[in-house]
Amino acid sequence: MSVLPHHAVSPPPRDHGGGLDAAILRWGGTRADWLDLSTGINPVPYPVPDLPDWAWEALPDTGAQSALIEAARSFWNVPDKAAILAAPGASALIARIPHLVPAGIVDIPSPTYNEHAASFVAQGWTVSQDTPQARVLVHPNNPTGRFWSAADITAPFTIIDESFCDIAPDQSLIAQAAQPGCVVLKSFGKFWGLAGMRLGFAIGDPALIARLADMTGPWAVSGPALSIGAAALQDHTWAKTCRSRLSQDAERLDKLFTAKGARVSGGTSLFRLYEVDAASEWQEKLAKRHIWTRIFPYSKTFLRVGLPHPEQWAQLESAL
Amino acid sequence: MSVLPHHAVSPPPRDHGGGLDAAILRWGGTRADWLDLSTGINPVPYPVPDLPDWAWEALPDTGAQSALIEAARSFWNVPDKAAILAAPGASALIARIPHLVPAGIVDIPSPTYNEHAASFVAQGWTVSQDTPQARVLVHPNNPTGRFWSAADITAPFTIIDESFCDIAPDQSLIAQAAQPGCVVLKSFGKFWGLAGMRLGFAIGDPALIARLADMTGPWAVSGPALSIGAAALQDHTWAKTCRSRLSQDAERLDKLFTAKGARVSGGTSLFRLYEVDAASEWQEKLAKRHIWTRIFPYSKTFLRVGLPHPEQWAQLESAL
Repeated sequence: MSVLPHHAVSPPPRDHGGGLDAAILRWGGTRADWLDLSTGINPVPYPVPDLPDWAWEALPDTGAQSALIEAARSFWNVPDKAAILAAPGASALIARIPHLVPAGIVDIPSPTYNEHAASFVAQGWTVSQDTPQARVLVHPNNPTGRFWSAADITAPFTIIDESFCDIAPDQSLIAQAAQPGCVVLKSFGKFWGLAGMRLGFAIGDPALIARLADMTGPWAVSGPALSIGAAALQDHTWAKTCRSRLSQDAERLDKLFTAKGARVSGGTSLFRLYEVDAASEWQEKLAKRHIWTRIFPYSKTFLRVGLPHPEQWAQLESAL
Repeated sequence: MSVLPHHAVSPPPRDHGGGLDAAILRWGGTRADWLDLSTGINPVPYPVPDLPDWAWEALPDTGAQSALIEAARSFWNVPDKAAILAAPGASALIARIPHLVPAGIVDIPSPTYNEHAASFVAQGWTVSQDTPQARVLVHPNNPTGRFWSAADITAPFTIIDESFCDIAPDQSLIAQAAQPGCVVLKSFGKFWGLAGMRLGFAIGDPALIARLADMTGPWAVSGPALSIGAAALQDHTWAKTCRSRLSQDAERLDKLFTAKGARVSGGTSLFRLYEVDAASEWQEKLAKRHIWTRIFPYSKTFLRVGLPHPEQWAQLESAL
C-alpha cells in the first residue's frame, strides 16, 4: 500500500535548472536568504546601463537590430557566409529547431541539457544513435564540460549549442557555422549573467536560419536586450576580465568541495561537476543552509554547483 | 524602357509599421527630431519602475510567471476553462499559430494587419473565403477599427486578435476564449505603450495553448516584462485614466485633420484612419516636417495616424 505525501505538488513538465521557488517552499527563508548555485549563470553580470526611453516604448527598429547583429558577428568571428538570427533566449530557438527539417532520428549524446531531447521528441523525432538525420552537440557539454570537434559534425543537420562556450572562445566551432545543415547556438544569459533579459542567437546555414526567422516573427528581441546586448558584445575588456575571474573562482570552488570529499568530474568555469557518494544528501544538506545546488534524475552521484557571487563565499564556506 | 531608381534599396520582407529609420535616412534629422505617428502605440506609456536586479539576472522563476498570469486572468476576465500563455510579444505568437493545425484554407477579412496572412502563407496555408478551416478576426480591426461579434466565429480554428481591444474592454470577445478551436491574442505593447518590452498573450482552447507553449519553450518572457506586466495589469486606475485621455486625444486629432480636408474613415482611440485624396502626398508633406505617418500598399486614400505625446501637439499643428 503506498502512502501519498501530504504536500505532493505537480512536478514541472521537465527537469529544469532553477526551481529555487520550490526549494524555498520546502526549506523556508526568502529569496534574499538563498544562495542559488543551481544554474551556470555568471554571478557578476554585465552592468545594466541606464536605458533610453525608446528601448522600452518603441518597436525595435532596424537600426538597433542591425547594431546588435553586427556586434555579434564581430564578437564571435561569424563566417561571412553564415546567417545570424537574434531571439529572446536560446530556449526559444531550441523549441523551434526540430521544425526546421522533417522529423526523423536525432542523436543527442547524453547526459546533456535535457531541453534539446524534449523539444525534438515533442515534434515527433526519435532519439537514437542509429543513422541519425540530426545531431545535437552541447559544446562544452552541460554538465560534463566535454568539448567536441569539427569531426563530430556527422549528421546532415547538426546543432552545436555553444551556450557555455564564451568561457573558452578558442574552442568555438563557429568556423563550421556556414556548413550546409549546421546551426550554432549562442546564449547571452550565462556568460554575461543576464539570463532574465532573454537573448540568444542562432548562427548557421542561411536557408535554415531564414526558416527559423519566419517562425520567430518580427521584433523578437526586446529594446533593452538590443541595447544592452550590443554594448556587451563590443566590450572585449569586460569579457577578458570576466573569463579570468571565473577561472580563478572555479578553482576556489574545487578546493572547497574536494576538501569535503567530492571529486571533480568535469564542468566549465561557469559551473563545476562533482562526483559524490550520494548527491541528493549533499543537495539536502546544503539546502538546509539555504544553498541550492543541482542534481540529476539520471545520476545518483553527480552534483553540479555554480559559482557564488564574490560576497557569498562565506555563506558557502560555513555551510560546507 | 523602364528606368531604375538610383537609390533602390531592398524592400523589407513585409509592409510593417515602424520604418522610422528608413524615413530618417530619406528626409534627414535624428530620431529625437521626429514625431513617429506611424504606429498605434500609446505615447504616454505605463511608467517603468526601478527593477530588482534579479529581474535581469535570474532565469524567470515560476513565482514571477504565475504572478503575471494571475494578473492577466483577472484584468481580462479570462474564463476559467481557457488556458493562457505569455510570450515575448503578440508577433511571436502570430508567427507560430499557423503550425497549430494542419495547413488548409484561412479566411482573413481584409484589409487588416498583414502579419497574419504572411505567417499563414509561410506555413503553407491558402488565404481564401471558400470553406475555410481557419479564420482571423482582428478585433477591433487595424486599420478600420471594425469590431466583430461572437457570431463571426465561424471556422473550426478562429484567432481573435485583440491587440487594440484594451481601449474598449466591454467589446472584448474573451468570453469565447474557452470554445474549442478558439485563440484570443492580447498585446501589452500598444495600450500600455511599452512595445519595446515585448509581451503578449495567447488565451484560449487549452489543447491549442499547450501546443503553443511547447513551441515557445521555457522562460519565454523576460524578467523585466514579468515584473512590469504584472504591476500594470493590476493597475485598473491607470488603465481607466488612460482610456479617457486616449479618447479625448483621438477627438483632438480628428479635429486637426478634418480641418485640413481629411475625412474620418475609422480607427480606434490608439490610431485614427483618415481618407484623403492622395495618401502618399500627405505622408510626404508631413515627413518633410519630420512627422512619420502610415500609408498602405492596398489603398491610395488611407492615411493612418497615431496619437502624439502631449508635448508634441505643437509640432503636428504647425506641420499641418
